[in-house]
Amino acid sequence: MNNQSYVVGIVGASGAVGQELVRLMHERNFPLSRLRLFASARSAGKKLTVGDETIEIEEAKPGVFADVDVAFFAAGGSVTRALAENAVAAGCLVIDKSSALRMRDDIPLVVPEINPEKLTGHKGIIANPNCSTAVMLMGLWPLHQLFGVKRIIVSTFQSVSGSGAEAVRELESQVLASVHGDPIKRKVYAPYQIAYNCIPQVDTFGEDGYTGEETKMAQESRKIMGLPDLKVSATCVRVPVVRAHSVSVCAEFERPVDLAQAREAIAAFPGAELVDEPAERKYPTPLDFAEKVKCGVGRLRIDTAMDNALSFWVTGDNLWKGAALNAVQNAELMIERGWLKPKAAN
Amino acid sequence: MNNQSYVVGIVGASGAVGQELVRLMHERNFPLSRLRLFASARSAGKKLTVGDETIEIEEAKPGVFADVDVAFFAAGGSVTRALAENAVAAGCLVIDKSSALRMRDDIPLVVPEINPEKLTGHKGIIANPNCSTAVMLMGLWPLHQLFGVKRIIVSTFQSVSGSGAEAVRELESQVLASVHGDPIKRKVYAPYQIAYNCIPQVDTFGEDGYTGEETKMAQESRKIMGLPDLKVSATCVRVPVVRAHSVSVCAEFERPVDLAQAREAIAAFPGAELVDEPAERKYPTPLDFAEKVKCGVGRLRIDTAMDNALSFWVTGDNLWKGAALNAVQNAELMIERGWLKPKAAN
Repeated sequence: MNNQSYVVGIVGASGAVGQELVRLMHERNFPLSRLRLFASARSAGKKLTVGDETIEIEEAKPGVFADVDVAFFAAGGSVTRALAENAVAAGCLVIDKSSALRMRDDIPLVVPEINPEKLTGHKGIIANPNCSTAVMLMGLWPLHQLFGVKRIIVSTFQSVSGSGAEAVRELESQVLASVHGDPIKRKVYAPYQIAYNCIPQVDTFGEDGYTGEETKMAQESRKIMGLPDLKVSATCVRVPVVRAHSVSVCAEFERPVDLAQAREAIAAFPGAELVDEPAERKYPTPLDFAEKVKCGVGRLRIDTAMDNALSFWVTGDNLWKGAALNAVQNAELMIERGWLKPKAAN
Repeated sequence: MNNQSYVVGIVGASGAVGQELVRLMHERNFPLSRLRLFASARSAGKKLTVGDETIEIEEAKPGVFADVDVAFFAAGGSVTRALAENAVAAGCLVIDKSSALRMRDDIPLVVPEINPEKLTGHKGIIANPNCSTAVMLMGLWPLHQLFGVKRIIVSTFQSVSGSGAEAVRELESQVLASVHGDPIKRKVYAPYQIAYNCIPQVDTFGEDGYTGEETKMAQESRKIMGLPDLKVSATCVRVPVVRAHSVSVCAEFERPVDLAQAREAIAAFPGAELVDEPAERKYPTPLDFAEKVKCGVGRLRIDTAMDNALSFWVTGDNLWKGAALNAVQNAELMIERGWLKPKAAN
């Protein structure tokens, strides 16, 4: 069964996450019988090189999923809303990176290291978490299993690649303009400049004064960990980093915490790499964890403001564990457990 | 009495904070009869232009303070330890920016908007707070006066100018090297690169896993606000920003909070500028608050993780309110209240 291969579609193949999906398919030897790339009509016809192969991008539209076994959706909420049900109707498993369907009760939101059992309950669509949430949980989940988390207060340091490829170019062009003394153009983050700045807004504001990103971190953490009563306060901030998000976490637990146990649990957790030797000045930074499969966890310490609490720092690749990688890992796990069969095998 | 003028000395005149002290003396029309600049033997003999005047830097050593009324110390803890008592013995008021003496019971640690009454209790030395602490308190103090703060959990986003002028050059040279594809040299923050990165360490680590900066934020906040039991947990992070520190604060209070009252109190507080219109995407960023007298406070909202709590974001110039400006404001207030008399008047 594990030798089966699959027709895989990537919807949004020309975007930042789509590109990483293409790359991960190739680098992780995903069992492909065929890779189909979809994007908007604007990108259709362009060609992408994947390994030795050149693949032409097709227009993402209803009807294209007939032979597709798994479609990764990485084109934003509106495309998911427009096309996901069509793919499901064609018998295609949708693994969605958008936020459109994550909180729907009938759609599992899965991080394979945390709630893989939810993969069996899908009705054609599996959702993936927000980037900051996925990265943070790589530190929080192993600690929760030991001590039982009840409250988290977090601040994020989010890279510009989370806003897409155009934002990466904007940071680079602003830095260049600053070096040359040219006027600095602002578009993605207008009216603000992101070079040499911090912008305390990720996503749009809700009526309660929290941004969408901050609310997602709360809601998605609760759903993924199965903790509906978890108390969460998040402040999400964009920083002039190209790739990898970092999260400063203060977590209060039900039971007394033990630092040595906490470190062991992080080190043993498949999604995390413990980088935590203060005396040696060793801790994870975004530059060190860009394009890494695991998220770095460090600065673990007994919290000084709350009882039974730990503070720590997690950093991980927002385009990988925060997006494309988590989606691919979900598909890989379904194949490994025999939960996904290619149509061609029927 | 307010027409008196003073012989002012600046110790550490060639450093990042010293330069700002020189500039603020001039821009704020500090009542100077003479400005004397002191630095290490290495910088002695160099000349600085201040307004229309050219001043030669003298070597900072015992015996130089005989005619000096006020000496601002901005040369680090070792220089303060070596020379402050000598200045005091010469009848000179020492306004110290270093961390060397801040926590000594017999030395007042003063933010003029918060505890100006402590200025009368000095024995020749007045200490000034750590940069992150001073900036954070411009948001926290007015809220404390309304609701009574009992616990804060903070994460900082600190600019490289807090590490001195060499660190600013390091960020700029790393950005330049990155633009040109040259090898990136690391010195101030070695082994880490600061360009396009976040470094979760400011100051050296203590045995409890907290850095000196994090511990200072706790201890100094308690001393300045007169709240020995305040619970504080801080995570201090260096970000690739040139100037102005930002702090993400979650604050729990004794009494129920009211958002409208909170905003009014911030707007009315002399040290703060309220920039808080989420619907208009208005909040303070470090680029907007570099070289500003006030600190920007925004993102005020009812905290979702704790009862009676608010979350907010403060950003302010670490070289001004976080250092030189607070020191100058302390001296100005002493003059205004008639607590500082020039020696020449005796």
